[in-house]
Amino acid sequence: MYLFHNDYNMSCHPAILEKVSRGNDRQYPGYGDDDVCHNAAALIRNACSAPEADVHFLVGGTQTNLTVAAAGLRPYQAMLGAQTAHVNVHETGAIEATGHKVETLPSSDGKLTAEQIRERLTLQANDANAEHAVQIKMVYISHPTELGTTYTKKELEAIRQVCDTFGVYLFMDGARLGYALSAWDNDLSLADIARLCHVFYIGGTKLGALFGEAVVITEPTLKTDFRYLIKQRGAMLAKGWLLGQQFEAFFEDGLYFRIGDHANKLADKLRATLSHLGYPLFLPGTTNQVFAVLPDALLEKLEGEFTFMLQEKTDTTHSAVRFCTSWATTEESVDALCRKLESLS
Amino acid sequence: MYLFHNDYNMSCHPAILEKVSRGNDRQYPGYGDDDVCHNAAALIRNACSAPEADVHFLVGGTQTNLTVAAAGLRPYQAMLGAQTAHVNVHETGAIEATGHKVETLPSSDGKLTAEQIRERLTLQANDANAEHAVQIKMVYISHPTELGTTYTKKELEAIRQVCDTFGVYLFMDGARLGYALSAWDNDLSLADIARLCHVFYIGGTKLGALFGEAVVITEPTLKTDFRYLIKQRGAMLAKGWLLGQQFEAFFEDGLYFRIGDHANKLADKLRATLSHLGYPLFLPGTTNQVFAVLPDALLEKLEGEFTFMLQEKTDTTHSAVRFCTSWATTEESVDALCRKLESLS
Amino acid sequence: MYLFHNDYNMSCHPAILEKVSRGNDRQYPGYGDDDVCHNAAALIRNACSAPEADVHFLVGGTQTNLTVAAAGLRPYQAMLGAQTAHVNVHETGAIEATGHKVETLPSSDGKLTAEQIRERLTLQANDANAEHAVQIKMVYISHPTELGTTYTKKELEAIRQVCDTFGVYLFMDGARLGYALSAWDNDLSLADIARLCHVFYIGGTKLGALFGEAVVITEPTLKTDFRYLIKQRGAMLAKGWLLGQQFEAFFEDGLYFRIGDHANKLADKLRATLSHLGYPLFLPGTTNQVFAVLPDALLEKLEGEFTFMLQEKTDTTHSAVRFCTSWATTEESVDALCRKLESLS
Amino acid sequence: MYLFHNDYNMSCHPAILEKVSRGNDRQYPGYGDDDVCHNAAALIRNACSAPEADVHFLVGGTQTNLTVAAAGLRPYQAMLGAQTAHVNVHETGAIEATGHKVETLPSSDGKLTAEQIRERLTLQANDANAEHAVQIKMVYISHPTELGTTYTKKELEAIRQVCDTFGVYLFMDGARLGYALSAWDNDLSLADIARLCHVFYIGGTKLGALFGEAVVITEPTLKTDFRYLIKQRGAMLAKGWLLGQQFEAFFEDGLYFRIGDHANKLADKLRATLSHLGYPLFLPGTTNQVFAVLPDALLEKLEGEFTFMLQEKTDTTHSAVRFCTSWATTEESVDALCRKLESLS
Repeated sequence: MYLFHNDYNMSCHPAILEKVSRGNDRQYPGYGDDDVCHNAAALIRNACSAPEADVHFLVGGTQTNLTVAAAGLRPYQAMLGAQTAHVNVHETGAIEATGHKVETLPSSDGKLTAEQIRERLTLQANDANAEHAVQIKMVYISHPTELGTTYTKKELEAIRQVCDTFGVYLFMDGARLGYALSAWDNDLSLADIARLCHVFYIGGTKLGALFGEAVVITEPTLKTDFRYLIKQRGAMLAKGWLLGQQFEAFFEDGLYFRIGDHANKLADKLRATLSHLGYPLFLPGTTNQVFAVLPDALLEKLEGEFTFMLQEKTDTTHSAVRFCTSWATTEESVDALCRKLESLS
Repeated sequence: MYLFHNDYNMSCHPAILEKVSRGNDRQYPGYGDDDVCHNAAALIRNACSAPEADVHFLVGGTQTNLTVAAAGLRPYQAMLGAQTAHVNVHETGAIEATGHKVETLPSSDGKLTAEQIRERLTLQANDANAEHAVQIKMVYISHPTELGTTYTKKELEAIRQVCDTFGVYLFMDGARLGYALSAWDNDLSLADIARLCHVFYIGGTKLGALFGEAVVITEPTLKTDFRYLIKQRGAMLAKGWLLGQQFEAFFEDGLYFRIGDHANKLADKLRATLSHLGYPLFLPGTTNQVFAVLPDALLEKLEGEFTFMLQEKTDTTHSAVRFCTSWATTEESVDALCRKLESLS
Repeated sequence: MYLFHNDYNMSCHPAILEKVSRGNDRQYPGYGDDDVCHNAAALIRNACSAPEADVHFLVGGTQTNLTVAAAGLRPYQAMLGAQTAHVNVHETGAIEATGHKVETLPSSDGKLTAEQIRERLTLQANDANAEHAVQIKMVYISHPTELGTTYTKKELEAIRQVCDTFGVYLFMDGARLGYALSAWDNDLSLADIARLCHVFYIGGTKLGALFGEAVVITEPTLKTDFRYLIKQRGAMLAKGWLLGQQFEAFFEDGLYFRIGDHANKLADKLRATLSHLGYPLFLPGTTNQVFAVLPDALLEKLEGEFTFMLQEKTDTTHSAVRFCTSWATTEESVDALCRKLESLS
Repeated sequence: MYLFHNDYNMSCHPAILEKVSRGNDRQYPGYGDDDVCHNAAALIRNACSAPEADVHFLVGGTQTNLTVAAAGLRPYQAMLGAQTAHVNVHETGAIEATGHKVETLPSSDGKLTAEQIRERLTLQANDANAEHAVQIKMVYISHPTELGTTYTKKELEAIRQVCDTFGVYLFMDGARLGYALSAWDNDLSLADIARLCHVFYIGGTKLGALFGEAVVITEPTLKTDFRYLIKQRGAMLAKGWLLGQQFEAFFEDGLYFRIGDHANKLADKLRATLSHLGYPLFLPGTTNQVFAVLPDALLEKLEGEFTFMLQEKTDTTHSAVRFCTSWATTEESVDALCRKLESLS
């Protein structure tokens, strides 16, 4: 059985495990205030060309999102995201439980456009009864999105410009950031992202870590007392060095990018086969998530042998499904899937 | 200047003021635990044919909505309402500040249909990853809606049936309930509403009280410790008898219904004139809110003399506007408005 | 039956009722944005010699306290108050429901001392693990306190100085402020209080209003978007002018101070009788709350004829009780109580 | 340098690391719904003789405490704990941020007595104004306490009885539970604890896991939808099997108890030496935390060579300090410390 249903179905990349294992013979101060975390943070600041950035390591994505919300929003302020935003649909109302509304905009590909955001914030700015509605203060984007799409540098610059016009923070959820940074058509460096976002995070869990997300804060007003919030939300790992070790492994010698590259290339191979066989993509993409529309009859025959995720029924006989590759996906498993698709077509 | 922009622009109906004034010569126990409140609650239970109902008096609508949310929802549970729902758009995120997401369904007339709710709850019931999303546990409807429309008995019965199927509470925001109960085409008595809703409130502020909303709880699980929540949310009036006095005035001799009838009849008169002049209604309705589409040129000429609320631009030369009548609207002011409309047409 | 158990057991002072009644014949804009509220705010700014202050009118004390907490505290920040503080013991956890801890200091008379606060904040400032505890950011004092005691100008200046040293807000709950301002030994003017507190409120409910508290904000960082918070917490009265009318009545011609003076003088009379009869005060005081220690046998004989509040048992045969006077207390009722005490002694 | 300042300053016990490492070659379903977690839960249910219990694995203690609070408390309900309770002093107000007050009782040794709890709950039950205060609904105890003390079976039975009398949940924070279970004077089995607590957790982080706490819920009303809360609070680990693997290692062959036993014996050795040298214990104890009162002059000489935690100054020349042992503490390091103490005495 080959598992393509997500990119977090194995523990971790061997280099991560080795790093953690080798770290088992010494003692550390707790709560992330240790030399390993400090070094990992320095590596990340360097990779981001952001010497002034604050870097914090948290365990998972939902807790990262809600902690950033708590840091950046006053009680009556809201996040603005796409209807498909992870914070809107897959975190059991974590942002609302922190007290904040998630306002949404329609999106067919998981992305927001600068123009959409401008329209929405212009409405807010012109609303004579604004105080009867929440006040949008943070734009949430994911990159890659939940639908595998990515932003270009030009798009991100335009979004940031709108945010600046309206005094709103730009927050990027980078749970799968490594895949975007390694896509063949990517033109956004970590330094660009650090320059264009007030805060973002570099996802570890979905890139081959046991767990862990690195929050990078460049906006000074968001830095204040961030560790109080991490602790209060239960997101401060006692043995914080475990996070530091994993991000050292990622950023010491480019592993983070190699993992992204590996997974993307295998996804590209699958996309090429699908295209060759005439199966349309549900959404375009160049990262590790492949969304394709396939006949239900074919999908039934895949089951038993390959796993994938059902996205939605597209008509009575077809469905959009997602195949994910990861650091752990082998070329042979993708070849096996491609051959199976060919044989069934 | 005649004010038609809302139904809460004067203090209160003279009978209310008289009641409050006459109550100024005696002493009372505090926090709503007095004979006046007890009597007002009894009058309401009687009007609702709901001898087992709990009745609580709160000052305003937003605090009532958030207190009911706090009573009925566990932290991961959500309200479901129309996109136009007051809790969604005009309460500055009060429900989210209480920790709960407001899920919405599209609606062109402010109403939800049983079928829409069934579809949404069926999706939830069939979602294998349900615990990654909020759990809808309360359906929020307003009656009349924010757009002046109302539910029929058949519609409300259908909605309740769906709620029962899925184990979800039905909550009616009755900020303008008196207008619905007095509409010429109404077939829903207070007793019907008490039977069909788990909890609802009888609005006072918009019906001619100084302030005040009477929450009626028929569902036993929602009754427990409700007063703790009222107090915690700052919604327990120290001099609670002031609320009791006003609801006594409303329900001792049918004043609540007479006020609704008065305002509705004047609104009907305005609707008739608009129809006669060929101006379309933006939305149908039989209560005190008249939504009409009028030429911008005409509206400009009304300004200075009559107030109204802009709802939205409908095309480059027309707008939908709202005229509200109330207990305080005089027949002569409506006649003046009608004559003006005629003279401008 | 003479009611001395609290100072909010009658509706309102006749001048308040007259003001509200006379305001019943005109129309107003909603939500406190009307000429009456603007005028009342100007009167208060003037009385406070604080032309730059923001003034907001809310309905009750608990909602005022929680709204100020929401305005001044980030999620991990706490209020510091006496163990007897109203926010700590009589608001059903309203501050905690807003997300904030109420840290307490011991106090036998309801007051905090500058020295206590300095010690506590010094501990916090020197705590190497500070981020594992809440961060005190607001000092809450009540004046008069829940135990009827008051601060002197020197004491308040010392507290403010400590607050400035540690960058902490000073918030005064003035639910009974009028009684403090009118006490014979008072040396704190409204202008002093406005200068020494970052935010405070002028209580109406307990001074003879139907309801209403006027928040005065002098600290700029607390002013931002305060109305969003009022609305979100359900504390924005639709017919806001009702609050404006009452505070106009209070501050147009000194009524607020005359009411305080009236009640204090009657309380002084009662204190004099108690002293003359040899009954000790439970706590000293010069405002409208009289805390006395009396034999249980005597108290039993008072019941039926006079109400009062049990504070606590002081030994097996005595109890501390509270008698409250108010705008509504007549000299003859106090005389009756004094004669009764004399006859029973 | 020997580190005795806490029990979580090394990564993990070798058996844990081996288990995690060996699990790196296979794929798993996410979010703790995998065979490893199911097996670990079964092992724990078995160890607790609680076949009906629900077992959930969370990453850390603070998030566990706040998730249990969210599960068991309605908005106006509070936890009751000792003033020294971890939830009260070392979690940055996590419980309050979840909306709930932590009520405290004085305690010199970190424990609550059944009698204290009974008195407090009796006051609550008899309070005519109960709805103006929070309602205590959950008693929080830690075992061992933050001060290294433990409960006996008799004490725990008495506490549970009081909880039953008043309809209050009993929650045990077992962050260091393994040390209590392995103490030489322990008479409480896991089965006793499962029988006497409505909910408790078995701490992993402080017993030699990389991270992880296993919540055991025996009370049916606390079980409902617990996973929604875990997810909402950001406490659901994507690669949940990592938690399962570690608790499998703990409970497959008694490792959890052996680790406790190892650390306790070394702590006993240190206590014996201190006693022999005439240094008083600050608090009695039989688990891995040793609280001793030592001369400041001596402590200064220990520094550079041994770490420990300062608890408090006890007089001008002495301090109470804590030495912690753990799975990682070697006999030779304790011997070195003992010799050093001897040589300095």
